[in-house]
Amino acid sequence: MQLTRAADYALRVMIHLASQPEAAKLRLRDLAAAVDAPENFLAKVLQCLSRADLVLSRRGPDGGFELPVSGRRATVLDVIEAIEGPIALNVCLSEEGCERRDWCPAHLVWAEAQRAMVTILRGATIEHMASVGRQRKAALACEDESEALAKQQ
Amino acid sequence: MQLTRAADYALRVMIHLASQPEAAKLRLRDLAAAVDAPENFLAKVLQCLSRADLVLSRRGPDGGFELPVSGRRATVLDVIEAIEGPIALNVCLSEEGCERRDWCPAHLVWAEAQRAMVTILRGATIEHMASVGRQRKAALACEDESEALAKQQ
Repeated sequence: MQLTRAADYALRVMIHLASQPEAAKLRLRDLAAAVDAPENFLAKVLQCLSRADLVLSRRGPDGGFELPVSGRRATVLDVIEAIEGPIALNVCLSEEGCERRDWCPAHLVWAEAQRAMVTILRGATIEHMASVGRQRKAALACEDESEALAKQQ
Repeated sequence: MQLTRAADYALRVMIHLASQPEAAKLRLRDLAAAVDAPENFLAKVLQCLSRADLVLSRRGPDGGFELPVSGRRATVLDVIEAIEGPIALNVCLSEEGCERRDWCPAHLVWAEAQRAMVTILRGATIEHMASVGRQRKAALACEDESEALAKQQ
């Protein structure tokens, strides 16, 4: 019960794109380096994100990947579902369903657990996460600087 | 991001055992039929549950599987972790960890989503679920009976 590597990379790449100045275009090679992903694999992930209108892919010498408004406003849930399809923590919650659903007490627990998880994933937008990431990086840089200063004294 | 089939069967079999009269022993064949699982596969699942002291396996002509008190009081989380190991919705939450953890905003969202999900899974005991299952089955039987009566009138 773990997020696929593809969805993890998708989320990383979306946050990285959202951290750039507006209308910035990034090349596959730079994106792969920024999110620690193999280029070939990330190319497929970006294709899925592009199909879901979460990422824009521009061809040509000045081309690259950029984030449209729909990408900035997307939530973690949108990104995961663009890669993995609709979330279903257990098979009984999927379209496939389960014959035991009408009486099985586990089904109720799975439904509740999924609701709780999805509420969090739906509450976090890419835009907001990029801003949190910038703050966390800045705070880390400050800490490093303070430590370096303390050592000098 | 979906529960493994093994963990799903484990949960089903624990609830089924908890629905039996106390100290009842059930054979593999009957358990497999009750939870719609292939016998060979379920045998391996039961071995894991037995190793985690969630199920007791008695050998001999009167042998079979039964639920110890620890099994009745176990939660959904205990059962999943007996089969899949510690829950980690994303690899950054696992023991393996992630180098980006100190600043990555996605890590915070994953941690929060996992906390929300785990709270539900830790709140549901096998004993309670067996009792809910009995009530739901009884309610369904009542509905069927009412429908049959209505058709006769």
